[in-house]
Amino acid sequence: MIPRHDPQLKTFASDNYAGVHPEILQAIATANGGHQTAYGDDVYTEALQEVFQRHFGEQARAWPVFNGTAANVVSLRAMTAQWEAVICAESAHINTDEGGAPEVVGGIKLLSVPTPDGKLTPELIDRQAWGFGDVHRAQPRVVSISNSTELGTVYTPDEIAALCAHAHERGLLVHLDGSRLTNAAAALDVPMRALTTDAGVDVLSFGGTKIGLLYGEAVVVLNPDAARGIDYLRKTFMQLSSKMRFVSAQFEALLSGDLWLRNARRANAMGRRLAEAVGDIPGVEVTRPVEANAVFAVLPPDVIGRLQKRMRFYTWDEARNEVRWMCAFDTTEADVDAFAEAVAEEMGSARS
Amino acid sequence: MIPRHDPQLKTFASDNYAGVHPEILQAIATANGGHQTAYGDDVYTEALQEVFQRHFGEQARAWPVFNGTAANVVSLRAMTAQWEAVICAESAHINTDEGGAPEVVGGIKLLSVPTPDGKLTPELIDRQAWGFGDVHRAQPRVVSISNSTELGTVYTPDEIAALCAHAHERGLLVHLDGSRLTNAAAALDVPMRALTTDAGVDVLSFGGTKIGLLYGEAVVVLNPDAARGIDYLRKTFMQLSSKMRFVSAQFEALLSGDLWLRNARRANAMGRRLAEAVGDIPGVEVTRPVEANAVFAVLPPDVIGRLQKRMRFYTWDEARNEVRWMCAFDTTEADVDAFAEAVAEEMGSARS
Amino acid sequence: MIPRHDPQLKTFASDNYAGVHPEILQAIATANGGHQTAYGDDVYTEALQEVFQRHFGEQARAWPVFNGTAANVVSLRAMTAQWEAVICAESAHINTDEGGAPEVVGGIKLLSVPTPDGKLTPELIDRQAWGFGDVHRAQPRVVSISNSTELGTVYTPDEIAALCAHAHERGLLVHLDGSRLTNAAAALDVPMRALTTDAGVDVLSFGGTKIGLLYGEAVVVLNPDAARGIDYLRKTFMQLSSKMRFVSAQFEALLSGDLWLRNARRANAMGRRLAEAVGDIPGVEVTRPVEANAVFAVLPPDVIGRLQKRMRFYTWDEARNEVRWMCAFDTTEADVDAFAEAVAEEMGSARS
Amino acid sequence: MIPRHDPQLKTFASDNYAGVHPEILQAIATANGGHQTAYGDDVYTEALQEVFQRHFGEQARAWPVFNGTAANVVSLRAMTAQWEAVICAESAHINTDEGGAPEVVGGIKLLSVPTPDGKLTPELIDRQAWGFGDVHRAQPRVVSISNSTELGTVYTPDEIAALCAHAHERGLLVHLDGSRLTNAAAALDVPMRALTTDAGVDVLSFGGTKIGLLYGEAVVVLNPDAARGIDYLRKTFMQLSSKMRFVSAQFEALLSGDLWLRNARRANAMGRRLAEAVGDIPGVEVTRPVEANAVFAVLPPDVIGRLQKRMRFYTWDEARNEVRWMCAFDTTEADVDAFAEAVAEEMGSARS
Repeated sequence: MIPRHDPQLKTFASDNYAGVHPEILQAIATANGGHQTAYGDDVYTEALQEVFQRHFGEQARAWPVFNGTAANVVSLRAMTAQWEAVICAESAHINTDEGGAPEVVGGIKLLSVPTPDGKLTPELIDRQAWGFGDVHRAQPRVVSISNSTELGTVYTPDEIAALCAHAHERGLLVHLDGSRLTNAAAALDVPMRALTTDAGVDVLSFGGTKIGLLYGEAVVVLNPDAARGIDYLRKTFMQLSSKMRFVSAQFEALLSGDLWLRNARRANAMGRRLAEAVGDIPGVEVTRPVEANAVFAVLPPDVIGRLQKRMRFYTWDEARNEVRWMCAFDTTEADVDAFAEAVAEEMGSARS
Repeated sequence: MIPRHDPQLKTFASDNYAGVHPEILQAIATANGGHQTAYGDDVYTEALQEVFQRHFGEQARAWPVFNGTAANVVSLRAMTAQWEAVICAESAHINTDEGGAPEVVGGIKLLSVPTPDGKLTPELIDRQAWGFGDVHRAQPRVVSISNSTELGTVYTPDEIAALCAHAHERGLLVHLDGSRLTNAAAALDVPMRALTTDAGVDVLSFGGTKIGLLYGEAVVVLNPDAARGIDYLRKTFMQLSSKMRFVSAQFEALLSGDLWLRNARRANAMGRRLAEAVGDIPGVEVTRPVEANAVFAVLPPDVIGRLQKRMRFYTWDEARNEVRWMCAFDTTEADVDAFAEAVAEEMGSARS
Repeated sequence: MIPRHDPQLKTFASDNYAGVHPEILQAIATANGGHQTAYGDDVYTEALQEVFQRHFGEQARAWPVFNGTAANVVSLRAMTAQWEAVICAESAHINTDEGGAPEVVGGIKLLSVPTPDGKLTPELIDRQAWGFGDVHRAQPRVVSISNSTELGTVYTPDEIAALCAHAHERGLLVHLDGSRLTNAAAALDVPMRALTTDAGVDVLSFGGTKIGLLYGEAVVVLNPDAARGIDYLRKTFMQLSSKMRFVSAQFEALLSGDLWLRNARRANAMGRRLAEAVGDIPGVEVTRPVEANAVFAVLPPDVIGRLQKRMRFYTWDEARNEVRWMCAFDTTEADVDAFAEAVAEEMGSARS
Repeated sequence: MIPRHDPQLKTFASDNYAGVHPEILQAIATANGGHQTAYGDDVYTEALQEVFQRHFGEQARAWPVFNGTAANVVSLRAMTAQWEAVICAESAHINTDEGGAPEVVGGIKLLSVPTPDGKLTPELIDRQAWGFGDVHRAQPRVVSISNSTELGTVYTPDEIAALCAHAHERGLLVHLDGSRLTNAAAALDVPMRALTTDAGVDVLSFGGTKIGLLYGEAVVVLNPDAARGIDYLRKTFMQLSSKMRFVSAQFEALLSGDLWLRNARRANAMGRRLAEAVGDIPGVEVTRPVEANAVFAVLPPDVIGRLQKRMRFYTWDEARNEVRWMCAFDTTEADVDAFAEAVAEEMGSARS
C-alpha cells in the first residue's frame, strides 16, 4: 500500500486528527505474533490492571473499550438503574457531541446545567439535584464532569474534591470523562490520581486516543461499589474487542512510563504557545483561559473563512465568530509558528 | 515495552486468537504521520469506497465500524423500523453470542428458526415469515444469514440466490453476516460478489478482524434502498472511530490485492488438513462438513479435558462431547500436524 | 350518546371481547365524585394492598398498570439487570403477541423453548439455563410461565413448585403471567396462592381485564427480594394511571369477594360445555386438553371460512386448520349451544 | 363495595385529582354489554374517527392510548428516526415530569430551551435548531410545544402559526402536547382546530383525562406525512387497550357535543375566580398570567406549610415559595371561595 496523505501536514482542528505515537505502534508490533486468548483473557490485558493501579490506586480496575462515547455510556449505565439520570454541564461532550448515544442507546436521561466555563460546582449541581423519591422525575444519581473540559478549562484537585464531597452527601456518584485527563494532570503538574481517586471520583472514562493511541479508551472503576455489570455491559454495548491484547499493549506503552506525560505536556505547551502568538495579533481575541491544549478565539468572519480554506479547524460558536484550535501530542513549535503566521497574514489582509 | 507472550504459540480455539497480518500492520504505519480529518473524512476512507466497489459492485457503499456485533446491529437497525423484526437461524451469532446486543441495545426482536446445519432455506424462512399487518406480532422485515455459518458450513451462490428471491417476494430484505465471508468465497472459489450482490443480498456485515486485521469490520450496503441513516446510526451506536484512516487503510491492504484470498485459503486448507488428520484417529468423529476453516468433532470427555489443559479450545456442545477447532490465517501445516499428534496421543492414552 | 352495538351479541373469539361486569362498573361509580390524590396516593389504592395480601400472602405488594403487556414488561425489567435474559415457552404471549414490546421497549432478550403444550418443565428450562458467567451470552435470570397457558392448559401447584425449585437452584427467578390466573385457580379449585406464593413464584402479572374489569392489570411482587424499582419503572414505562383510584376500586370489587371466582368458573364451565358440544360433531376434532376457558379444534377449512363469516374467531394454526374458541365471564349456556349448533350446521353442509 | 372517600372534598392540587364526569360514565355504560372486537376494531372506535375529524379536519386520524406520557412518546417516536431529536421548552412535561420516558423508553433525545413563560418562539427554537447533517449531533427533527403550557399560559393561533411556519422552513415538524388543549381553546374562545390543524401543527397529543374522562388520551395525526407506524408503535409501546370500545365511547361523549367546552370553560373560569380572590389578599402575589385553569402564587413558606396540612397542593418552586393551584372541570364557586377564605385565614395568622 502506498501513502495517500502528506505526513508532514498538521492542523489545529482536533487532537484526534493526529496519528499514532511511534512507541504505541511499536507496542502493537511487540504484542503481535502467535495466538492469544481473545476478548480480554490475554497476558497484556492481565498486566494492564497493575498499570492502571499504579496511577489510580489498588482498588482501580480497567475495562478497555473502543472509543470515548462508549466509555462514557458504559460507565454511566453501570452506575445507574434504568430510572436514574445523570447531571452534567450543558457543554458536556455526552450532551452535545455523541449523537444522542446516552439517550438513544444507553436509555439515560441527562439533566444539564448551563455553566460559564464548562465546569460544574456544588451550587450548579444543586440546580438539578432534587426531586428524590418523586416517580415523575428521572432520579438524579450521577454527576458527570469532564477534565480538561470541552472549553479547555481544567478542574483543580480541590475543585473536584469539593464537588465529589457535595455529590456524595446528596447520594450522588461522580463520573469523570477523562478523554483529556492526561492534559489536565500535565497542566496542573499533579498525578492523575490527585484529580480522580484522591478527590473522590467514582468512575473514570480514561482517554487514550487523543493522547497518541491508535484506538482505545477505558472504563476505570475507582470505587468498586459504584458500578456493576461492566463485564457484561461492555459486550452488550458492542465494545468488547476480540483482539484486546493490542488495546492493552497500547495502554501499557502509554502509561507504564512517562509517554502520557510527555505527550500531554507537549500538547499543552503548544496550546500556550499558540495562545500567546495569536494573542499578540491585533483583532484576535483569545476568549477563554488556555489551561490545557485548546485555544478559543474570536476573529472576523471573513478571516475565519479564508483561514479554514488554508487549513481545517472548527467554528465553535457561529454567532460569536469564535473558533477552537487544538494542539496535539505531535504539534511542533514550527507548526504553531507557521499557523500563527497564517493567522497574522489573513488578519493583515482583513485589515487592508 | 517487552513482549509478554510466546509469539510461536498457536491454538485452535478461534480465528480471532490470531494477531495481525504483517501487511496490515505495515498499512497502519503507512497511514501514520501528520494529521488527517477525523471521523472518516480522510483520504484513506475516501479511497476505500472504490476498493469495496471492486468487490461488490458500483452501488456498494461501506461504513467501517469497530467490531462484528456492531456491524450486525447497525446493519439490522438501518434496515428496520422500530416495530420490525429479523428472522435468523437459532444458531446465528446475533442470536447466541452477542450478549443480547440486538435486543438490548438495538431494540430488535429476533425470530429464530432451528436448522440442521446453520443454514436457512426458503422453507425455514416461512416458519417465521407470517403475521404481516398484525400489530400483535413484531413485523418480519429482514432475513439474516451467516456465510460461512457458525457451524462451519457454506452457502453456495445458488442457495443464497434462492433464499433472497424468496425473501424479496415476501417483502423481506436480506442481511448477510459476513464475519467469515472471505472464507466462504475462498472455499467455493468464487468472487465475494457471487455470494452477495449477485445473489441479491441487500446489506452485508463484512468481517476483517478474523482474516488478519487488527480491528475493523464494515457495514456494506449493496442495495441503497434497503438501509437508511447509517451515517447517523454508526455514531449513535458508538461505532464511529475518530482515527478512521487506520481502519480504512487496513481494509485497503486486505482487499486491494489478494491478501484476503491468501489468508482465507490458508485458513480453509488448514481446516481440511486438520479434519483429515484427526478423522484418521480411531475414536474421533468429525461431526459436520468441513467447508471452511472450522472443524467440529466428538471425542471422549476425558480426552477433551486433557487436551484443553494442553491448549485452549471450546467445547461446542457439552451434552454431545462435541468440540470446535478453528484454523486462522496464520495456522501452519506444522501447527496442524502437532495438534493432530496431540489428539492422537491423548486418544491413545484414553484407549489404554 | 346512543349505543352503536348489539349488547346481546356474543362471540367466541377472545375473553377480552367481553365488556365490563356490572359489579365492576358499580365500583367505578362508587369511587367517583370529589377529588382524590392522583397517581396512586389515594384511599382505594391504599386499601388494595390488603386485598391482594389476602390472596397472595402478607409479603405481597401490588402495582396496578394499564394492560397485560405492560404488567409483563415492567415485571421482567424489575427482575433483571440490563444484561440478563428471560427463559419462556416459544408459545408465550410475551414472545408471540406483544409486538416485540419486551425486546423493543424493555430491552429484554427472550430465550424461548418449544413445548408440546405451552408448559415449561425443569428439563425444558435447562435447554436455555446455561452459559452463566459467559459475557457473550445474555445471562439467563428469569423463567416466565403463563397459567393458564396460551394453549388452554393449566399448571398444577406441584408442577409450578417443581419448576420454581429447579429455577431457584439454578439461580433463576420465576415470573408468572397470570393474565388468566383466575381461570387456572378456578379450574383446579385451589386458592390463587397455591399456584403462586406457595409454589415459589417470585413475581406475578395479575390479569383483571379478561375476567371482567374495564381495564387494569397488576404487577404483584410475591418475593420482595426479586424485584426493584417498580415505583419508578411503572412511571417510566408509561403505566402510571393518574386516576388510579378507579383501577384499584375495580380490583377491590373483583377480589374482595368471590366475583373473580364466579366469573372464572363460568368461563371455564362454558369452555367445557363448548368442547363437549362440538366434540360430538363428526368431523370436528378438539385438539388440546380443555383445562380452562379455551377450546382448540380442527375443522375443514371451508367450514372455518363460513363460520367466521357468521361470527368472528381466530384461526390458531393455518397449516393445521386449527381454530381457537374462547369463553368469557359473560358467556351463557344459550350462547354456547347456539354456537355449537352453528358449527353443526356448517359441518352438515360441508359433508353434503 | 362501599365508598372509602368523601365525594364532596375538592382540592386545588391538580385537574387529575378530579373523577369522571357523569356523562362519561354513562357513555361507558352505554358501550357495555355483549361482545365487541378487541384492540380497536369495534364500532365505537370506528365512529371515533369522524368525531375527531369534525374538530381537526378531514385528514385527521386518532389513535386512543392510555395516558398522556404515552401519547407524547408514541407521537414523537412516530415522527422521528432513531437518530433524530426533539426541541422543547425546559419546562415541558416531556422534559420534567415523565420519569425520563422519552429518553429511557422512547430512546429520544430532548433538546431543551429555557423560556420565560413556558412558550417557545421561532427565536428560541433556533437556539437548538442547528447542526443539521453533523453526525455528532442528534438531529433536530421535531418541535414540541404544550398548550396550555405547564406554566398556565396559552399560545394564540397566530403564535402557533408563526412557530409552525418557522419550524417547517427549517425542515422541522411540530408536535403539540394537548393534555390541556380544551382549556386553551376555551380560554381563547376559538375552535381547537384554530390552534392545531389550521396553525400548521403536524401531530397532536389530545388529552381526555384531565377534562373529565376516566382514562384516555389520543395520538391525533393532522399531517399524514408527519408520522408513520402508529398502529404498530402503539402496540409495541404497550398502549393498545384490549377493550378499546370504552376509551372511544368516552371520547365520543366528550367531543361529539359540547361537554369538552363546558368542562374547560368551568375549569378556566374557576382559575380566574381563584386568581382574583387570592390576588386581593395582602401578601399573596399571583406570579404568572392566569390564562387557563392554573394559578401560580408566592406566599410565605409557613403559610404554604399550614395550607398544605389543610389541603393538598404542590409547591412549584421551593426556592421562590411559589405554589401551583389547579382548577378542574368539577370545581365550583363554593370550592374556590372556601379555599380563598382558607388562604386568607392562614395569611392572617401569618401576619399576626
